[in-house]
Amino acid sequence: MPIFATEGAILSAVVTILAILLYTFMSIRVGQMRTKHSITAPATSGHPEFERAFRIHYNTLESIAVFIALLWLATIYFHTLPWLPALVGLIWVIGRVLYMTGYMNDPSKRGTGFGIAMLSQLVLLVIAVIGIVQTWMAVNAV
Amino acid sequence: MPIFATEGAILSAVVTILAILLYTFMSIRVGQMRTKHSITAPATSGHPEFERAFRIHYNTLESIAVFIALLWLATIYFHTLPWLPALVGLIWVIGRVLYMTGYMNDPSKRGTGFGIAMLSQLVLLVIAVIGIVQTWMAVNAV
Amino acid sequence: MPIFATEGAILSAVVTILAILLYTFMSIRVGQMRTKHSITAPATSGHPEFERAFRIHYNTLESIAVFIALLWLATIYFHTLPWLPALVGLIWVIGRVLYMTGYMNDPSKRGTGFGIAMLSQLVLLVIAVIGIVQTWMAVNAV
Repeated sequence: MPIFATEGAILSAVVTILAILLYTFMSIRVGQMRTKHSITAPATSGHPEFERAFRIHYNTLESIAVFIALLWLATIYFHTLPWLPALVGLIWVIGRVLYMTGYMNDPSKRGTGFGIAMLSQLVLLVIAVIGIVQTWMAVNAV
Repeated sequence: MPIFATEGAILSAVVTILAILLYTFMSIRVGQMRTKHSITAPATSGHPEFERAFRIHYNTLESIAVFIALLWLATIYFHTLPWLPALVGLIWVIGRVLYMTGYMNDPSKRGTGFGIAMLSQLVLLVIAVIGIVQTWMAVNAV
Repeated sequence: MPIFATEGAILSAVVTILAILLYTFMSIRVGQMRTKHSITAPATSGHPEFERAFRIHYNTLESIAVFIALLWLATIYFHTLPWLPALVGLIWVIGRVLYMTGYMNDPSKRGTGFGIAMLSQLVLLVIAVIGIVQTWMAVNAV
């Protein structure tokens, strides 16, 4: 079966969609805050609530490309527990939801969710590296 | 035939290259405006024309990783009309060109192109979800 | 052998991990500078050293999604020299390291590393386009 048709890959595809939906929601919030506080483009400051929504969106932007890349490297190369990359990816999405809700209430409360997402990303990196090493050894053993 | 060698995937590869070329052009424009208006790094403000070029680039940055991810999820999982993801991706690129030209002339004229790109991205998301569900059902039916 | 298990792809996976490690290091530096100079979120300015670390991170963010996409398009489609995309990708990572160290010392010294990374990205784009054309011709020749 091709890699992308495996159950692990399909679960990772679902998690990718969830991450993108959350990220899209964050970008819509920025637009809403822009309208609510009458902040005209190209300005990106002017009201604390807008600035928080803007930073939530951009901080997630800083991570999402790397997150998607790590999720798929882990999915493609690590086969010991095929569902593990998707599970860790789901925890990343949950961490980012907590980060968003915490930050909107109070910037000092963004730590927990941020930490969960950061840790998930680190775990995905470790899983990807293990998978790459396993694949390398399997190919050279043939 | 491996998925990446199908005509649908090759068309999506071409669209990815076009999106990257447009994005690279936007980033070069920011550098030119930096020079033109003598705005020394790390400053990111100082003249409306520079700020517009900067926001066009960054707003496209906000979308491009998610766009590429959705384009390829749709390409890999949706096989009913294999050329459809590439076509919708091409409309995204056209929307982003209109967004860029509109915004440079007048920030209030960025809406049409932005809307076309946003809508294309939403359509890609729907196509990707349909494809993921179809693949899931096909795998579990075997 | 599936494409992702080829030696070229495994090398590109390693380079992707290296790029992500460098990028993660840059983001940690921003957090450290935020603490060092007591710049409270959501502010993103306030001290030259923080602003340099912030711009290094964001300038790399501007490139990393496109870099990863080009690296993998080149890896998937170009088979004449399977290790070439990974090699050019490695040069991109080295360019970004030089960019970071140069910029932290003096913003005017960021040019060399930036140029190396920019050129590597252009070479990856050319390799990807050659690979896409080759694959297109191979598919239509069958």
